Amino acid sequence: MVMSFLDLRDELRAAAPLVQCLTNSVAMPLSANVLLAAGASPAMIDTPEEAGDFAALASGVLLNVGTPTAERYTAMREAVRGATAAGTPWVIDPVGAGVLAHRTFFVDALLDASPTALRGNASEISALGGTGAGGRGVDAADTVEQALPAARALAERTGGVVAVSGPVDLIVSAGRSTWLTSGDPLLTLVSGTGCALGALCAAYLGLGADPHDAVLAAHAHTGAAAQLAARSATGPGGFSTAWLDALHHLTSAEIADLVSWKDPS
Amino acid sequence: MVMSFLDLRDELRAAAPLVQCLTNSVAMPLSANVLLAAGASPAMIDTPEEAGDFAALASGVLLNVGTPTAERYTAMREAVRGATAAGTPWVIDPVGAGVLAHRTFFVDALLDASPTALRGNASEISALGGTGAGGRGVDAADTVEQALPAARALAERTGGVVAVSGPVDLIVSAGRSTWLTSGDPLLTLVSGTGCALGALCAAYLGLGADPHDAVLAAHAHTGAAAQLAARSATGPGGFSTAWLDALHHLTSAEIADLVSWKDPS
Amino acid sequence: MVMSFLDLRDELRAAAPLVQCLTNSVAMPLSANVLLAAGASPAMIDTPEEAGDFAALASGVLLNVGTPTAERYTAMREAVRGATAAGTPWVIDPVGAGVLAHRTFFVDALLDASPTALRGNASEISALGGTGAGGRGVDAADTVEQALPAARALAERTGGVVAVSGPVDLIVSAGRSTWLTSGDPLLTLVSGTGCALGALCAAYLGLGADPHDAVLAAHAHTGAAAQLAARSATGPGGFSTAWLDALHHLTSAEIADLVSWKDPS
Repeated sequence: MVMSFLDLRDELRAAAPLVQCLTNSVAMPLSANVLLAAGASPAMIDTPEEAGDFAALASGVLLNVGTPTAERYTAMREAVRGATAAGTPWVIDPVGAGVLAHRTFFVDALLDASPTALRGNASEISALGGTGAGGRGVDAADTVEQALPAARALAERTGGVVAVSGPVDLIVSAGRSTWLTSGDPLLTLVSGTGCALGALCAAYLGLGADPHDAVLAAHAHTGAAAQLAARSATGPGGFSTAWLDALHHLTSAEIADLVSWKDPS
Repeated sequence: MVMSFLDLRDELRAAAPLVQCLTNSVAMPLSANVLLAAGASPAMIDTPEEAGDFAALASGVLLNVGTPTAERYTAMREAVRGATAAGTPWVIDPVGAGVLAHRTFFVDALLDASPTALRGNASEISALGGTGAGGRGVDAADTVEQALPAARALAERTGGVVAVSGPVDLIVSAGRSTWLTSGDPLLTLVSGTGCALGALCAAYLGLGADPHDAVLAAHAHTGAAAQLAARSATGPGGFSTAWLDALHHLTSAEIADLVSWKDPS
Repeated sequence: MVMSFLDLRDELRAAAPLVQCLTNSVAMPLSANVLLAAGASPAMIDTPEEAGDFAALASGVLLNVGTPTAERYTAMREAVRGATAAGTPWVIDPVGAGVLAHRTFFVDALLDASPTALRGNASEISALGGTGAGGRGVDAADTVEQALPAARALAERTGGVVAVSGPVDLIVSAGRSTWLTSGDPLLTLVSGTGCALGALCAAYLGLGADPHDAVLAAHAHTGAAAQLAARSATGPGGFSTAWLDALHHLTSAEIADLVSWKDPS
């Protein structure tokens, strides 16, 4: 039986939500292509002059702090202001938090503005939650399991959803935590797949359903497509191509056959 | 019989024009790869200090206002100054014009500097021409047919070529309008294909032939390659790869077999 | 028999060096993907606030002056300061040097800071060494052979390794020059392959072996993967995908079977 959260995948294709991305220069092309493949409409509006107004038009907004220029920092603040005023859901992806002081300070301040969702790896979430061993660059040194207390603390602090991506994904919100098993290790050999997942979270949140379900559906969609792509791929190049194709074709029912999850709490 | 404008494709391969691109961060890699695949030489020179001087060396210059930082705005003005002084043809791609006020104002002012070509979707051209329903992000809400009066007005204002890209492309210049049928819907599922088409327009204009023919040839090359790629593609990932291969291999004669066009006026 | 420098390829996979890249916006995604495919860990930390501190954590640092914003110029200076203080090896890729005055001046000044390696095409190296016909955009107008005197002069000036990439690669350091035959012309039809090679040089230098061997190994890895990819590719799109796969799978022993080299001095 298909759970309600997986129905959102077919809804996404029908609704084609407009997703504003303020993201890093490395992940921009892949993030836009992932959104298009999934059926959303990407708009990379990331200037101080335009980001705030556009956040009122968008269905969802992604902030990602990889390669953050001074202008992008300002634009991200403007986008939060615009999204908050308009009630647009927004996601923050804290790339490198805990390792790099400047962006960690920035993200920490934004957490007080109540992001709809926070998505990172175990080290980033642990660092922001005040625990954790720290990461090495953009890789995680902590396990997803170790990040559970930090995720719970951050969900309480923000009032939103906190997602820890890894071999098994953890989605936490007030009174609910879900463990999702999906994906393939080849995802870690393609640059920007985590960042693109953050963008996809913003797309699913743009549908207006329960935020926990939306973030969970984005992770399941991403992971199921990776499983499908890994069947035919012979390396990271071919995998990347096949992953985009799978993101495009997968239906709610097909994803349900590929992933598994449990809600222990 | 091959019309003269299609002969330009084989000329492009022989001449390998040097194309300066001041474009957005999302479309940069694809635009460079499209130019290389087609046989041109890309140079992404987009700093205020260097853009003006380089425009004198380039065969053609592309300006694209997606993700426009303060430095890129300045660099684009410098490139126009350098291109104008040196007689280098230049193209402007008004991504998001009509939706985003800041860049719309910038593009509108540049139209007075007589761009050799202006290439956009129906909503962008309609907005700049003072008509139109407006777009949603970077997608068009108007049809190509509806953009005809705006394209005519803009061609008169600029003295150059105005191209409206869509399911059927419209190329307008003083006393001439051409409807081109080519392409495939999969083009809309790959980020940056429209931006790359703008870069290819600058490459074709760099050959020194009639500007209307050059812009038309760039659209036909792009569209024919999409048709070829769509035959084997199973999704947007594989399509993107096959499109680059087709852009590389297609000859003037092969494009003539794939596309059709009419000059009603 | 496998020479010592080729053993570094298997070492790279085992060590997974952390590579900080301050590179251009065009080549960012490909460079990150090349590093991941090869087995390294990319981190695109390129802001003035964070680049210096991170260079102390990284195994190797790449500076690339394509699309250099004011912030990236500052960040590159900070990265050199941080790398020098921590003893982290660093590579500079002088994209467009000799053609574009502003960046040429910047690179020339950095050569006095003793880069571990300098990697460019024949025109860039010739220009920096005070000889050469100049390039056209980012393409080389000089041959690799013609760049030998300039490479020797620059190796003496910097005390480091100077690599001239081309149909045959030349690697020069004090008292040693190596000619490497590998690669495929399809490499020149994919944007950013040279820039990604620069990043791979930083990865190999991060292993702590002899710098001449490290830079040579990076070139051999890149070239051998291109040879393998060219066997199945039908154009630049498919080649790019196959090249990433080959970069991932190739072992030291397999590279030894694909490339050849000579140390005449």
